[in-house]
Amino acid sequence: MVGAEQLKRAAGIRAAEYVTNGMRVGLGTGSTVRYTIEELGRRVDEEKLEIRCVPTSISTENLAIELGIPLFELAELNGLDIVIDGADEFDSNLNLIKGGGGALVREKIVAQASKSMIVVADESKRVETLGTFPLPVEVIRFSWEETRRRICELTGLSTSEVLLRRTSDADAVFNSDNGNHILDLHLGEISGPVELEQELLALAGVLDCGLFCGMASAIVLATSEGIEIIQREK
Amino acid sequence: MVGAEQLKRAAGIRAAEYVTNGMRVGLGTGSTVRYTIEELGRRVDEEKLEIRCVPTSISTENLAIELGIPLFELAELNGLDIVIDGADEFDSNLNLIKGGGGALVREKIVAQASKSMIVVADESKRVETLGTFPLPVEVIRFSWEETRRRICELTGLSTSEVLLRRTSDADAVFNSDNGNHILDLHLGEISGPVELEQELLALAGVLDCGLFCGMASAIVLATSEGIEIIQREK
Repeated sequence: MVGAEQLKRAAGIRAAEYVTNGMRVGLGTGSTVRYTIEELGRRVDEEKLEIRCVPTSISTENLAIELGIPLFELAELNGLDIVIDGADEFDSNLNLIKGGGGALVREKIVAQASKSMIVVADESKRVETLGTFPLPVEVIRFSWEETRRRICELTGLSTSEVLLRRTSDADAVFNSDNGNHILDLHLGEISGPVELEQELLALAGVLDCGLFCGMASAIVLATSEGIEIIQREK
Repeated sequence: MVGAEQLKRAAGIRAAEYVTNGMRVGLGTGSTVRYTIEELGRRVDEEKLEIRCVPTSISTENLAIELGIPLFELAELNGLDIVIDGADEFDSNLNLIKGGGGALVREKIVAQASKSMIVVADESKRVETLGTFPLPVEVIRFSWEETRRRICELTGLSTSEVLLRRTSDADAVFNSDNGNHILDLHLGEISGPVELEQELLALAGVLDCGLFCGMASAIVLATSEGIEIIQREK
């Protein structure tokens, strides 16, 4: 029997196969994507793979520097060819929830800059309907209670189901890299993710939400049976 | 002949007629709205008008305090009945461009919280097609050049037509109250304001833009012929 960690490693390495010579690559964050980045570092070193990369987090940036992967500012590259990232949930339409780590806006900017997006995940992230994972919504601090009120009106949630995210030790309110708050929406079930994203974005106090709809081109999935590739239907 | 300032004053006072006893009122900002606020202050004092108000700027807040108008935090009031504000441009569909002063997000939060929105303006703000006035777009500072690149792709503008706003003395980059940058889009003509707003809001680095579509209930317009009321068609 193959261990879970070995499966994640295999999925991470498999996802790296989407990267070819000359590509501009967005590097995501997470325990499975880490294996992708390590594999890319190996190919840069051993196979002289030429890529220009943009990290989505400080930890990925540090790992890439350590591995000798050439890094650039996003705006320098005039768009990306591919981004490889994780997800907190995905459904059969390849819609995603991301942002459990609080970097959803940075991750979405990189994903939107890219022609294709490959998601690496294990089976625990696959769901019938999105929404068991709380949906993160980044809101500006000014009048955030009013924004929460509007979100409650929109979704039918009570204020106790729209939680202001706190730091991991719960000592203080969490602030995103952009200096904003994050509200975690305990929706349970998101029947129309595309519509919900659009309605949330129309609220003036909302910067963005963790729904990534129509962006993933393929999921590289680590299952107990091995690696499964789920392609977006054309 | 009646002077322009007297016409603005008449329009401001006329707009105040929409405010009745018991209302929760959003108070906008600008030289015409100032007359509305002064009239409301008079009615609070002389006619014992009972209203609870939310200001959209520090200058309006100071004026309201001076006039003895009771002020509240937006979230305390659980929604507003009416907001009275100015606009930088409006068209015959009562769509607006606002945000020349850089407070578009705060103004939009207040407007979205309100059941109705009354706009006071003079004739110079009336246009056939929106877009002569540069459209302000509030963007986060992280990767703002990438966000500008996406805006250029979306609109067909060149980077020289999407200007990073600077402070009035042009000494430094302007920062909004939310700590973000403002890009001024020199579109010339906005053929589909509703679609453009939606497409801009879908960009991950964009917080909001100065298009206010479907929000104004009526325009109280100061013209050389007198006051004209333009109602939204049902």
